[in-house]
Amino acid sequence: MQEAYRQAKNALAEGEIPIGAVIVCNNRVIAKAYNQTEKLNDVTAHAEMIAFTAAAEYLGNKYLHDCTLYVTVEPCVMCAGASYWAQLKRVVYGAPEPKRGYRRLGVNLLHPKTEMVSGILAQECAELMTTFFTSKRN
Amino acid sequence: MQEAYRQAKNALAEGEIPIGAVIVCNNRVIAKAYNQTEKLNDVTAHAEMIAFTAAAEYLGNKYLHDCTLYVTVEPCVMCAGASYWAQLKRVVYGAPEPKRGYRRLGVNLLHPKTEMVSGILAQECAELMTTFFTSKRN
Repeated sequence: MQEAYRQAKNALAEGEIPIGAVIVCNNRVIAKAYNQTEKLNDVTAHAEMIAFTAAAEYLGNKYLHDCTLYVTVEPCVMCAGASYWAQLKRVVYGAPEPKRGYRRLGVNLLHPKTEMVSGILAQECAELMTTFFTSKRN
Repeated sequence: MQEAYRQAKNALAEGEIPIGAVIVCNNRVIAKAYNQTEKLNDVTAHAEMIAFTAAAEYLGNKYLHDCTLYVTVEPCVMCAGASYWAQLKRVVYGAPEPKRGYRRLGVNLLHPKTEMVSGILAQECAELMTTFFTSKRN
């Protein structure tokens, strides 16, 4: 999660919503990404989506059965839906996202085989988001 | 929807799940795509996702407020979640997808401003899916 946090800081430095993601497979980082919706002018360019594509490319397999996604903020519906298709082993996120996170729906959008862990480095990850949105309002 | 259907047939011809999508903005087709998850080895490469990215690129705007998405099959959770972010004016789909479609959740995953229309060319779109899955089972 420390590496995902570093990715989120990259996003912040580039004026993007500061969310970072890392995919680990057999104790090895195989993909790192941060949100690039502004730079790429593309609503689908969330950190998780970029990381899924990169991890599948690395593995030569679109299914990420042995992989863990670390992401600094609770995934949105789109990214949870993509996790479903990727059939990840585990999703670990930092800060909750009560407004746009998938969990607000009260339905498990991840694959039934995907384990979910939350709250890792939550405060630091949340603070990056607060820093970003406060700076936008000022 | 006829053009989306043609896109779905392209997918079928390439051994992909036959789903096609088109985005129309001010009576003009600005993006066409079909499912390429096998070819690109990427679970995120659904027709709709590719079309959103292409339409945003064309318009130079990641928000697709004035756009209608035509897609041959009811979008999945990932694509509905992406539609939310893109804030489409309208989503029009052909065949329902009771197993993987977003509507099975009973929650509106699209943006509150997005109008939804279903059932256009439904039978033809569904038949393409049946053709594909029947051929896979034989």
